[in-house]
Amino acid sequence: MAEQTAQFPVRRYSPGQVKDTADLVAVEEPLEIRLQGEPFQVLMRLPGLEKELALGFLFTEGVIQSLSEVITLHFCGTATDPLLPPNVVDVSLTEAALARRGRRHLEVSYSSCGLCAKEAVSEICRKVAPVGSNLTVRPEAIAALMARLQEFQTIYRDTGGTHGVALASADGAVFLMAEDVGRHNALDKVIGRALLEKRDLPAMVALLSGRISFEMALKAIRAGLPILAAVSAPTSMALELAQELNLTLAGFIRGPRLNIYTHPERIIIYTQRLK
Amino acid sequence: MAEQTAQFPVRRYSPGQVKDTADLVAVEEPLEIRLQGEPFQVLMRLPGLEKELALGFLFTEGVIQSLSEVITLHFCGTATDPLLPPNVVDVSLTEAALARRGRRHLEVSYSSCGLCAKEAVSEICRKVAPVGSNLTVRPEAIAALMARLQEFQTIYRDTGGTHGVALASADGAVFLMAEDVGRHNALDKVIGRALLEKRDLPAMVALLSGRISFEMALKAIRAGLPILAAVSAPTSMALELAQELNLTLAGFIRGPRLNIYTHPERIIIYTQRLK
Repeated sequence: MAEQTAQFPVRRYSPGQVKDTADLVAVEEPLEIRLQGEPFQVLMRLPGLEKELALGFLFTEGVIQSLSEVITLHFCGTATDPLLPPNVVDVSLTEAALARRGRRHLEVSYSSCGLCAKEAVSEICRKVAPVGSNLTVRPEAIAALMARLQEFQTIYRDTGGTHGVALASADGAVFLMAEDVGRHNALDKVIGRALLEKRDLPAMVALLSGRISFEMALKAIRAGLPILAAVSAPTSMALELAQELNLTLAGFIRGPRLNIYTHPERIIIYTQRLK
Repeated sequence: MAEQTAQFPVRRYSPGQVKDTADLVAVEEPLEIRLQGEPFQVLMRLPGLEKELALGFLFTEGVIQSLSEVITLHFCGTATDPLLPPNVVDVSLTEAALARRGRRHLEVSYSSCGLCAKEAVSEICRKVAPVGSNLTVRPEAIAALMARLQEFQTIYRDTGGTHGVALASADGAVFLMAEDVGRHNALDKVIGRALLEKRDLPAMVALLSGRISFEMALKAIRAGLPILAAVSAPTSMALELAQELNLTLAGFIRGPRLNIYTHPERIIIYTQRLK
Protein backbone atom coordinates (compact mmCIF):
# COMPACT_ATOMS: atom_id res chain seq x y z
CA MET A 1 0.00 0.00 0.00
CA ALA A 2 1.13 3.55 -0.65
CA GLU A 3 2.32 5.51 2.35
CA GLN A 4 -0.36 7.20 4.43
CA THR A 5 1.88 9.68 6.19
CA ALA A 6 4.80 11.73 4.91
CA GLN A 7 7.50 13.80 6.56
CA PHE A 8 7.73 17.47 5.77
CA PRO A 9 10.07 20.09 7.17
CA VAL A 10 8.43 22.38 9.70
CA ARG A 11 9.45 25.45 11.66
CA ARG A 12 7.86 25.22 15.10
CA TYR A 13 7.38 28.57 16.79
CA SER A 14 6.48 29.27 20.37
CA PRO A 15 7.27 32.57 22.12
CA GLY A 16 11.03 32.85 22.49
CA GLN A 17 11.68 29.58 20.67
CA VAL A 18 12.06 28.46 17.05
CA LYS A 19 12.91 24.95 16.04
CA ASP A 20 13.42 23.68 12.48
CA THR A 21 12.43 20.02 12.50
CA ALA A 22 10.15 17.58 10.66
CA ASP A 23 6.45 16.83 10.98
CA LEU A 24 4.30 13.92 9.86
CA VAL A 25 1.31 14.88 7.71
CA ALA A 26 -1.50 12.82 6.20
CA VAL A 27 -0.90 11.95 2.55
CA GLU A 28 -3.50 13.23 0.09
CA GLU A 29 -3.60 11.68 -3.39
CA PRO A 30 -6.20 11.68 -6.16
CA LEU A 31 -8.11 8.50 -6.92
CA GLU A 32 -9.86 8.22 -10.27
CA ILE A 33 -12.88 5.97 -10.48
CA ARG A 34 -13.48 4.67 -14.01
CA LEU A 35 -16.72 3.06 -15.11
CA GLN A 36 -16.37 0.74 -18.11
CA GLY A 37 -12.95 2.31 -18.70
CA GLU A 38 -14.27 5.88 -18.79
CA PRO A 39 -13.29 8.50 -16.20
CA PHE A 40 -16.23 9.07 -13.85
CA GLN A 41 -15.05 10.77 -10.67
CA VAL A 42 -11.84 11.92 -9.01
CA LEU A 43 -11.74 11.87 -5.22
CA MET A 44 -8.97 13.43 -3.14
CA ARG A 45 -8.22 10.84 -0.52
CA LEU A 46 -5.82 9.19 1.91
CA PRO A 47 -4.23 6.14 0.22
CA GLY A 48 -5.56 2.76 1.36
CA LEU A 49 -8.84 0.84 0.95
CA GLU A 50 -9.16 1.98 -2.67
CA LYS A 51 -11.56 -0.75 -3.80
CA GLU A 52 -13.66 -0.14 -0.72
CA LEU A 53 -13.74 3.60 -1.37
CA ALA A 54 -14.82 3.14 -4.99
CA LEU A 55 -17.46 0.61 -4.06
CA GLY A 56 -18.78 2.62 -1.11
CA PHE A 57 -18.87 5.78 -3.21
CA LEU A 58 -20.85 4.14 -6.02
CA PHE A 59 -23.24 2.65 -3.45
CA THR A 60 -23.82 5.74 -1.31
CA GLU A 61 -24.15 8.00 -4.36
CA GLY A 62 -26.92 5.77 -5.65
CA VAL A 63 -25.14 4.36 -8.73
CA ILE A 64 -25.12 0.72 -7.57
CA GLN A 65 -27.78 -0.81 -5.35
CA SER A 66 -25.83 -3.91 -4.35
CA LEU A 67 -22.52 -5.66 -4.87
CA SER A 68 -24.16 -7.91 -7.47
CA GLU A 69 -24.23 -4.96 -9.90
CA VAL A 70 -20.42 -4.89 -9.95
CA ILE A 71 -19.02 -7.16 -12.65
CA THR A 72 -15.32 -6.41 -12.08
CA LEU A 73 -13.35 -4.07 -9.85
CA HIS A 74 -9.62 -3.57 -10.38
CA PHE A 75 -7.08 -1.53 -8.52
CA CYS A 76 -3.34 -1.61 -8.94
CA GLY A 77 -1.34 0.47 -6.49
CA THR A 78 1.91 0.19 -8.42
CA ALA A 79 3.02 1.33 -11.84
CA THR A 80 3.58 -2.20 -13.15
CA ASP A 81 0.31 -2.67 -15.03
CA PRO A 82 0.46 -0.74 -18.33
CA LEU A 83 -3.34 -0.87 -18.70
CA LEU A 84 -4.14 0.29 -15.17
CA PRO A 85 -2.20 3.26 -13.81
CA PRO A 86 -1.81 3.61 -10.05
CA ASN A 87 -4.50 5.69 -8.33
CA VAL A 88 -7.18 4.37 -10.70
CA VAL A 89 -9.98 1.99 -9.77
CA ASP A 90 -11.51 0.46 -12.87
CA VAL A 91 -15.07 -0.78 -12.38
CA SER A 92 -17.45 -2.50 -14.76
CA LEU A 93 -21.10 -2.39 -13.85
CA THR A 94 -24.25 -4.05 -15.11
CA GLU A 95 -26.35 -2.15 -17.64
CA ALA A 96 -28.95 -1.35 -14.95
CA ALA A 97 -26.36 0.35 -12.74
CA LEU A 98 -24.77 2.20 -15.67
CA ALA A 99 -28.14 3.69 -16.52
CA ARG A 100 -28.22 5.18 -13.02
CA ARG A 101 -24.90 7.01 -13.21
CA GLY A 102 -26.60 10.17 -14.44
CA ARG A 103 -24.89 13.31 -15.53
CA ARG A 104 -21.98 13.26 -13.13
CA HIS A 105 -18.75 14.39 -14.73
CA LEU A 106 -15.19 14.95 -13.68
CA GLU A 107 -14.51 18.28 -12.06
CA VAL A 108 -12.78 20.77 -14.32
CA SER A 109 -9.65 21.08 -12.24
CA TYR A 110 -8.83 17.41 -12.19
CA SER A 111 -10.04 16.36 -15.59
CA SER A 112 -6.64 15.40 -16.90
CA CYS A 113 -4.51 15.12 -13.81
CA GLY A 114 -5.99 12.20 -11.97
CA LEU A 115 -2.95 9.99 -11.85
CA CYS A 116 -0.98 11.13 -8.82
CA ALA A 117 -0.50 14.06 -6.52
CA LYS A 118 2.87 14.89 -8.06
CA GLU A 119 1.50 15.01 -11.62
CA ALA A 120 -1.59 16.90 -10.48
CA VAL A 121 0.58 19.50 -8.75
CA SER A 122 2.82 19.82 -11.84
CA GLU A 123 -0.19 20.28 -14.08
CA ILE A 124 -1.68 22.95 -11.82
CA CYS A 125 1.70 24.70 -11.77
CA ARG A 126 1.59 24.99 -15.55
CA LYS A 127 -1.80 26.71 -15.40
CA VAL A 128 -1.87 28.72 -12.18
CA ALA A 129 0.54 31.57 -11.42
CA PRO A 130 2.55 31.45 -8.19
CA VAL A 131 1.68 33.89 -5.43
CA GLY A 132 3.65 37.08 -6.02
CA SER A 133 3.20 38.92 -2.76
CA ASN A 134 6.05 39.91 -0.43
CA LEU A 135 3.77 40.39 2.57
CA THR A 136 5.41 39.62 5.90
CA VAL A 137 3.74 39.18 9.28
CA ARG A 138 4.77 38.47 12.88
CA PRO A 139 3.57 35.27 14.60
CA GLU A 140 2.03 37.43 17.35
CA ALA A 141 -0.16 39.07 14.68
CA ILE A 142 -1.33 35.68 13.38
CA ALA A 143 -2.18 34.57 16.94
CA ALA A 144 -4.14 37.79 17.54
CA LEU A 145 -6.07 37.48 14.26
CA MET A 146 -6.91 33.84 15.00
CA ALA A 147 -8.18 34.79 18.47
CA ARG A 148 -10.35 37.45 16.84
CA LEU A 149 -11.75 34.92 14.34
CA GLN A 150 -12.64 32.55 17.17
CA GLU A 151 -14.30 35.37 19.09
CA PHE A 152 -16.54 36.19 16.13
CA GLN A 153 -17.58 32.61 15.32
CA THR A 154 -20.98 33.14 16.87
CA ILE A 155 -22.76 30.42 14.91
CA TYR A 156 -20.08 27.96 15.89
CA ARG A 157 -20.53 28.99 19.51
CA ASP A 158 -24.28 28.39 19.26
CA THR A 159 -24.21 25.16 17.27
CA GLY A 160 -20.72 23.59 17.08
CA GLY A 161 -21.56 23.02 13.41
CA THR A 162 -19.62 25.56 11.34
CA HIS A 163 -16.14 26.43 10.16
CA GLY A 164 -14.85 30.01 10.24
CA VAL A 165 -12.53 31.79 7.84
CA ALA A 166 -11.16 35.34 8.01
CA LEU A 167 -9.14 37.49 5.63
CA ALA A 168 -7.25 40.21 7.44
CA SER A 169 -4.53 42.77 6.93
CA ALA A 170 -1.50 42.05 9.12
CA ASP A 171 -2.39 44.90 11.49
CA GLY A 172 -6.04 43.79 11.71
CA ALA A 173 -7.35 47.10 10.31
CA VAL A 174 -9.17 45.10 7.61
CA PHE A 175 -10.92 42.00 8.94
CA LEU A 176 -13.49 40.08 6.87
CA MET A 177 -14.95 36.87 8.26
CA ALA A 178 -17.54 34.26 7.38
CA GLU A 179 -18.84 31.01 8.78
CA ASP A 180 -20.24 28.08 6.85
CA VAL A 181 -21.10 24.41 7.21
CA GLY A 182 -18.30 23.81 4.67
CA ARG A 183 -14.72 25.07 4.87
CA HIS A 184 -14.57 25.71 1.13
CA ASN A 185 -17.67 27.87 1.27
CA ALA A 186 -16.40 29.93 4.19
CA LEU A 187 -13.17 30.65 2.29
CA ASP A 188 -15.06 31.47 -0.91
CA LYS A 189 -17.37 33.83 1.01
CA VAL A 190 -14.57 35.99 2.41
CA ILE A 191 -12.74 36.03 -0.91
CA GLY A 192 -15.97 37.08 -2.64
CA ARG A 193 -16.45 39.81 -0.05
CA ALA A 194 -12.87 41.03 -0.60
CA LEU A 195 -13.51 41.17 -4.37
CA LEU A 196 -16.69 43.18 -3.90
CA GLU A 197 -14.91 45.59 -1.55
CA LYS A 198 -11.96 45.75 -3.99
CA ARG A 199 -9.52 44.75 -1.25
CA ASP A 200 -5.89 44.00 -2.01
CA LEU A 201 -5.84 40.19 -1.63
CA PRO A 202 -2.03 39.87 -1.87
CA ALA A 203 -1.82 42.05 1.27
CA MET A 204 -4.08 39.78 3.35
CA VAL A 205 -3.63 36.78 5.60
CA ALA A 206 -6.23 33.97 5.44
CA LEU A 207 -7.13 32.31 8.74
CA LEU A 208 -9.05 29.02 8.94
CA SER A 209 -10.66 27.27 11.89
CA GLY A 210 -10.08 23.83 10.35
CA ARG A 211 -7.67 21.84 8.24
CA ILE A 212 -5.83 22.69 4.99
CA SER A 213 -6.50 20.29 2.13
CA PHE A 214 -5.13 20.60 -1.38
CA GLU A 215 -8.34 22.32 -2.52
CA MET A 216 -8.15 24.97 0.21
CA ALA A 217 -4.52 25.74 -0.72
CA LEU A 218 -5.44 25.97 -4.40
CA LYS A 219 -8.28 28.41 -3.67
CA ALA A 220 -5.91 30.63 -1.67
CA ILE A 221 -3.30 30.55 -4.44
CA ARG A 222 -5.84 31.36 -7.16
CA ALA A 223 -6.98 34.32 -5.06
CA GLY A 224 -3.38 35.54 -4.72
CA LEU A 225 -3.38 35.20 -0.92
CA PRO A 226 0.20 34.84 0.34
CA ILE A 227 -0.37 33.31 3.81
CA LEU A 228 -2.84 30.61 4.85
CA ALA A 229 -2.87 29.92 8.59
CA ALA A 230 -5.03 27.23 10.18
CA VAL A 231 -5.91 25.78 13.57
CA SER A 232 -5.40 22.24 12.29
CA ALA A 233 -3.18 20.18 10.01
CA PRO A 234 -2.29 20.52 6.33
CA THR A 235 -2.24 17.49 4.00
CA SER A 236 0.81 16.41 2.01
CA MET A 237 -0.67 17.64 -1.26
CA ALA A 238 -1.55 21.04 0.19
CA LEU A 239 2.11 21.35 1.25
CA GLU A 240 3.45 20.26 -2.15
CA LEU A 241 1.25 22.77 -3.94
CA ALA A 242 2.05 25.56 -1.47
CA GLN A 243 5.78 24.88 -1.82
CA GLU A 244 5.61 25.05 -5.62
CA LEU A 245 3.35 28.07 -5.91
CA ASN A 246 4.89 30.26 -3.21
CA LEU A 247 2.15 30.09 -0.58
CA THR A 248 3.11 30.28 3.10
CA LEU A 249 1.25 27.56 5.03
CA ALA A 250 1.04 27.61 8.82
CA GLY A 251 -0.87 25.11 10.92
CA PHE A 252 -1.64 24.07 14.48
CA ILE A 253 -2.10 27.64 15.61
CA ARG A 254 -2.81 27.14 19.30
CA GLY A 255 -2.59 30.29 21.40
CA PRO A 256 0.81 31.86 20.67
CA ARG A 257 2.28 28.71 19.04
CA LEU A 258 2.27 27.74 15.41
CA ASN A 259 3.96 25.45 12.87
CA ILE A 260 5.23 26.98 9.63
CA TYR A 261 5.46 24.46 6.79
CA THR A 262 6.24 26.32 3.58
CA HIS A 263 7.86 29.63 2.65
CA PRO A 264 8.61 30.59 6.25
CA GLU A 265 10.29 33.81 5.13
CA ARG A 266 6.94 35.62 5.24
CA ILE A 267 6.61 34.99 8.98
CA ILE A 268 9.16 37.15 10.74
CA ILE A 269 10.34 35.83 14.07
CA TYR A 270 12.50 37.87 16.41
CA THR A 271 14.10 35.60 18.94
CA GLN A 272 16.09 36.67 21.91
CA ARG A 273 19.55 35.16 21.84
CA LEU A 274 20.28 33.51 25.17
CA LYS A 275 23.89 33.76 26.41
CA MET B 1 -31.38 37.22 5.53
CA ALA B 2 -32.51 33.65 6.06
CA GLU B 3 -31.96 32.21 9.51
CA GLN B 4 -28.52 30.73 10.17
CA THR B 5 -29.48 28.62 13.17
CA ALA B 6 -32.57 26.52 13.85
CA GLN B 7 -34.00 24.83 16.91
CA PHE B 8 -34.45 21.07 16.91
CA PRO B 9 -35.67 18.77 19.67
CA VAL B 10 -32.88 16.83 21.33
CA ARG B 11 -32.65 14.13 23.97
CA ARG B 12 -29.57 14.80 26.07
CA TYR B 13 -28.17 11.72 27.76
CA SER B 14 -25.57 11.51 30.49
CA PRO B 15 -25.24 8.55 32.86
CA GLY B 16 -28.31 8.47 35.07
CA GLN B 17 -29.90 11.46 33.37
CA VAL B 18 -32.08 12.05 30.33
CA LYS B 19 -33.45 15.43 29.34
CA ASP B 20 -35.73 16.16 26.39
CA THR B 21 -35.01 19.72 25.38
CA ALA B 22 -34.09 21.78 22.29
CA ASP B 23 -30.76 22.43 20.61
CA LEU B 24 -29.56 25.06 18.14
CA VAL B 25 -28.03 23.67 14.95
CA ALA B 26 -26.42 25.37 11.96
CA VAL B 27 -28.81 25.72 9.02
CA GLU B 28 -27.74 23.98 5.80
CA GLU B 29 -29.46 24.99 2.55
CA PRO B 30 -28.60 24.47 -1.11
CA LEU B 31 -27.46 27.44 -3.19
CA GLU B 32 -27.64 27.15 -6.95
CA ILE B 33 -25.22 29.22 -8.99
CA ARG B 34 -26.52 29.95 -12.48
CA LEU B 35 -24.36 31.24 -15.30
CA GLN B 36 -26.25 33.09 -18.02
CA GLY B 37 -29.45 31.62 -16.58
CA GLU B 38 -28.22 28.01 -16.79
CA PRO B 39 -27.66 25.85 -13.69
CA PHE B 40 -23.91 25.53 -13.08
CA GLN B 41 -23.28 24.36 -9.53
CA VAL B 42 -25.16 23.60 -6.33
CA LEU B 43 -23.35 24.21 -3.07
CA MET B 44 -24.64 23.07 0.33
CA ARG B 45 -24.06 26.07 2.56
CA LEU B 46 -24.97 28.15 5.59
CA PRO B 47 -27.33 30.98 4.48
CA GLY B 48 -25.77 34.43 4.30
CA LEU B 49 -23.21 36.15 2.02
CA GLU B 50 -24.69 34.46 -1.06
CA LYS B 51 -23.31 36.89 -3.63
CA GLU B 52 -19.92 36.66 -1.95
CA LEU B 53 -20.03 32.87 -2.01
CA ALA B 54 -20.92 32.73 -5.71
CA LEU B 55 -18.28 35.29 -6.61
CA GLY B 56 -15.58 33.68 -4.46
CA PHE B 57 -16.43 30.24 -5.82
CA LEU B 58 -16.19 31.36 -9.45
CA PHE B 59 -12.91 33.13 -8.68
CA THR B 60 -11.20 30.37 -6.69
CA GLU B 61 -12.35 27.67 -9.14
CA GLY B 62 -10.68 29.60 -11.94
CA VAL B 63 -13.82 30.58 -13.89
CA ILE B 64 -13.41 34.35 -13.44
CA GLN B 65 -10.07 36.07 -13.11
CA SER B 66 -11.36 39.37 -11.74
CA LEU B 67 -14.57 41.15 -10.77
CA SER B 68 -14.55 42.92 -14.15
CA GLU B 69 -15.59 39.64 -15.82
CA VAL B 70 -18.89 39.71 -13.93
CA ILE B 71 -21.56 41.62 -15.87
CA THR B 72 -24.43 41.11 -13.40
CA LEU B 73 -24.90 39.21 -10.16
CA HIS B 74 -28.38 38.78 -8.68
CA PHE B 75 -29.56 37.14 -5.52
CA CYS B 76 -33.01 37.31 -4.00
CA GLY B 77 -33.41 35.71 -0.60
CA THR B 78 -37.21 35.82 -0.65
CA ALA B 79 -39.85 34.26 -2.86
CA THR B 80 -41.11 37.59 -4.20
CA ASP B 81 -39.26 37.63 -7.52
CA PRO B 82 -40.94 35.24 -9.98
CA LEU B 83 -37.86 35.16 -12.22
CA LEU B 84 -35.36 34.49 -9.45
CA PRO B 85 -36.23 31.83 -6.87
CA PRO B 86 -34.67 32.04 -3.42
CA ASN B 87 -31.38 30.15 -3.00
CA VAL B 88 -30.33 31.00 -6.54
CA VAL B 89 -27.54 33.37 -7.51
CA ASP B 90 -27.83 34.36 -11.14
CA VAL B 91 -24.56 35.51 -12.70
CA SER B 92 -23.77 36.76 -16.18
CA LEU B 93 -20.17 36.67 -17.23
CA THR B 94 -18.13 37.99 -20.13
CA GLU B 95 -17.51 35.65 -23.05
CA ALA B 96 -13.89 35.16 -21.96
CA ALA B 97 -14.97 33.91 -18.52
CA LEU B 98 -17.72 31.69 -19.93
CA ALA B 99 -15.17 29.97 -22.15
CA ARG B 100 -13.29 29.03 -18.98
CA ARG B 101 -16.18 27.32 -17.21
CA GLY B 102 -15.19 23.95 -18.63
CA ARG B 103 -17.13 20.75 -18.24
CA ARG B 104 -18.41 21.31 -14.72
CA HIS B 105 -21.97 20.09 -14.32
CA LEU B 106 -24.50 19.78 -11.57
CA GLU B 107 -24.13 16.75 -9.36
CA VAL B 108 -26.66 14.02 -10.03
CA SER B 109 -28.28 14.18 -6.63
CA TYR B 110 -29.12 17.85 -6.75
CA SER B 111 -29.86 18.35 -10.41
CA SER B 112 -33.49 19.21 -9.91
CA CYS B 113 -33.75 20.04 -6.24
CA GLY B 114 -31.64 23.13 -5.93
CA LEU B 115 -34.28 25.44 -4.58
CA CYS B 116 -34.47 24.86 -0.85
CA ALA B 117 -33.62 22.31 1.79
CA LYS B 118 -37.27 21.39 2.29
CA GLU B 119 -37.86 20.70 -1.41
CA ALA B 120 -34.55 18.88 -1.72
CA VAL B 121 -35.45 16.65 1.23
CA SER B 122 -38.93 15.96 -0.23
CA GLU B 123 -37.44 15.06 -3.57
CA ILE B 124 -34.91 12.70 -2.00
CA CYS B 125 -37.73 11.10 -0.01
CA ARG B 126 -39.52 10.25 -3.24
CA LYS B 127 -36.43 8.45 -4.56
CA VAL B 128 -34.70 6.93 -1.55
CA ALA B 129 -36.26 4.30 0.72
CA PRO B 130 -36.42 4.98 4.46
CA VAL B 131 -34.18 2.95 6.75
CA GLY B 132 -36.05 -0.19 7.72
CA SER B 133 -33.93 -1.55 10.54
CA ASN B 134 -35.20 -2.07 14.09
CA LEU B 135 -31.70 -2.20 15.57
CA THR B 136 -31.46 -0.87 19.11
CA VAL B 137 -28.37 0.01 21.09
CA ARG B 138 -27.47 1.25 24.58
CA PRO B 139 -25.71 4.62 24.96
CA GLU B 140 -22.91 2.84 26.84
CA ALA B 141 -22.28 0.73 23.73
CA ILE B 142 -22.06 3.84 21.54
CA ALA B 143 -19.59 5.43 23.96
CA ALA B 144 -17.47 2.27 23.97
CA LEU B 145 -17.46 2.01 20.16
CA MET B 146 -16.50 5.67 19.83
CA ALA B 147 -13.64 5.20 22.29
CA ARG B 148 -12.45 2.26 20.20
CA LEU B 149 -12.60 4.32 17.00
CA GLN B 150 -10.51 7.04 18.63
CA GLU B 151 -8.01 4.49 19.85
CA PHE B 152 -7.52 3.14 16.31
CA GLN B 153 -7.18 6.51 14.58
CA THR B 154 -3.44 6.09 14.28
CA ILE B 155 -2.99 8.41 11.31
CA TYR B 156 -4.91 11.10 13.14
CA ARG B 157 -2.69 10.61 16.14
CA ASP B 158 0.42 11.01 13.96
CA THR B 159 -0.78 13.90 11.81
CA GLY B 160 -3.92 15.56 13.17
CA GLY B 161 -5.07 15.56 9.55
CA THR B 162 -7.67 12.83 9.12
CA HIS B 163 -11.25 11.90 9.99
CA GLY B 164 -12.17 8.46 11.24
CA VAL B 165 -15.33 6.43 10.61
CA ALA B 166 -16.28 3.00 11.98
CA LEU B 167 -19.13 0.60 11.28
CA ALA B 168 -19.75 -1.75 14.17
CA SER B 169 -22.25 -4.24 15.48
CA ALA B 170 -23.79 -3.09 18.77
CA ASP B 171 -21.71 -5.59 20.74
CA GLY B 172 -18.51 -4.60 18.95
CA ALA B 173 -17.93 -8.12 17.58
CA VAL B 174 -17.80 -6.62 14.08
CA PHE B 175 -15.76 -3.42 13.86
CA LEU B 176 -14.65 -1.94 10.52
CA MET B 177 -12.81 1.36 10.51
CA ALA B 178 -11.15 3.73 8.07
CA GLU B 179 -9.45 7.08 8.13
CA ASP B 180 -9.31 9.63 5.37
CA VAL B 181 -8.51 13.28 4.69
CA GLY B 182 -12.23 13.63 3.85
CA ARG B 183 -15.18 12.54 6.00
CA HIS B 184 -17.16 11.37 2.98
CA ASN B 185 -14.32 9.13 1.85
CA ALA B 186 -13.88 7.57 5.29
CA LEU B 187 -17.60 6.71 5.39
CA ASP B 188 -17.55 5.36 1.83
CA LYS B 189 -14.49 3.21 2.65
CA VAL B 190 -16.12 1.40 5.58
CA ILE B 191 -19.37 0.94 3.67
CA GLY B 192 -17.41 -0.48 0.73
CA ARG B 193 -15.57 -2.82 3.10
CA ALA B 194 -18.88 -3.97 4.61
CA LEU B 195 -20.23 -4.68 1.11
CA LEU B 196 -17.14 -6.72 0.21
CA GLU B 197 -17.43 -8.69 3.45
CA LYS B 198 -21.19 -9.09 2.88
CA ARG B 199 -21.95 -7.59 6.28
CA ASP B 200 -25.50 -6.82 7.36
CA LEU B 201 -25.51 -3.01 7.14
CA PRO B 202 -28.95 -2.60 8.81
CA ALA B 203 -27.46 -4.26 11.91
CA MET B 204 -24.57 -1.80 12.21
CA VAL B 205 -23.93 1.54 13.90
CA ALA B 206 -21.88 4.16 12.06
CA LEU B 207 -19.51 6.26 14.16
CA LEU B 208 -17.88 9.46 12.89
CA SER B 209 -15.09 11.55 14.34
CA GLY B 210 -16.49 14.73 12.81
CA ARG B 211 -19.71 16.50 11.93
CA ILE B 212 -22.89 15.27 10.20
CA SER B 213 -23.85 17.18 7.08
CA PHE B 214 -26.78 16.41 4.82
CA GLU B 215 -24.51 14.43 2.49
CA MET B 216 -23.21 12.23 5.31
CA ALA B 217 -26.77 11.47 6.46
CA LEU B 218 -27.81 10.64 2.88
CA LYS B 219 -24.89 8.26 2.44
CA ALA B 220 -25.85 6.44 5.66
CA ILE B 221 -29.50 6.20 4.58
CA ARG B 222 -28.63 4.90 1.12
CA ALA B 223 -26.47 2.24 2.79
CA GLY B 224 -29.37 1.23 5.06
CA LEU B 225 -27.47 2.14 8.24
CA PRO B 226 -29.96 2.81 11.06
CA ILE B 227 -27.78 4.81 13.50
CA LEU B 228 -25.24 7.54 12.75
CA ALA B 229 -23.37 8.77 15.81
CA ALA B 230 -20.80 11.57 15.69
CA VAL B 231 -18.40 13.45 17.92
CA SER B 232 -19.63 16.78 16.58
CA ALA B 233 -22.77 18.59 15.44
CA PRO B 234 -25.38 17.74 12.79
CA THR B 235 -26.70 20.40 10.38
CA SER B 236 -30.38 21.29 10.06
CA MET B 237 -30.71 19.54 6.72
CA ALA B 238 -29.07 16.36 8.02
CA LEU B 239 -31.69 16.36 10.79
CA GLU B 240 -34.59 16.97 8.41
CA LEU B 241 -33.49 14.15 6.15
CA ALA B 242 -32.84 11.78 9.07
CA GLN B 243 -36.25 12.55 10.54
CA GLU B 244 -38.02 11.82 7.24
CA LEU B 245 -36.07 8.70 6.32
CA ASN B 246 -35.97 6.99 9.71
CA LEU B 247 -32.29 7.45 10.55
CA THR B 248 -31.28 7.86 14.20
CA LEU B 249 -28.80 10.74 14.50
CA ALA B 250 -26.74 11.24 17.64
CA GLY B 251 -24.12 13.94 18.10
CA PHE B 252 -21.70 15.47 20.59
CA ILE B 253 -20.60 12.07 21.85
CA ARG B 254 -18.16 13.07 24.57
CA GLY B 255 -17.18 10.29 26.93
CA PRO B 256 -20.43 8.77 28.24
CA ARG B 257 -22.62 11.70 27.14
CA LEU B 258 -24.48 12.13 23.87
CA ASN B 259 -27.30 14.07 22.21
CA ILE B 260 -29.97 12.14 20.33
CA TYR B 261 -31.67 14.22 17.65
CA THR B 262 -33.91 11.94 15.59
CA HIS B 263 -35.63 8.59 16.11
CA PRO B 264 -34.43 8.21 19.70
CA GLU B 265 -36.33 4.91 20.05
CA ARG B 266 -33.29 3.04 18.72
CA ILE B 267 -31.17 4.20 21.67
CA ILE B 268 -32.40 2.41 24.76
CA ILE B 269 -31.81 4.25 27.99
CA TYR B 270 -32.43 2.67 31.38
CA THR B 271 -32.62 5.36 34.02
CA GLN B 272 -32.78 4.80 37.69
CA ARG B 273 -35.82 6.43 39.18
CA LEU B 274 -34.82 8.49 42.17
CA LYS B 275 -37.23 8.45 45.11
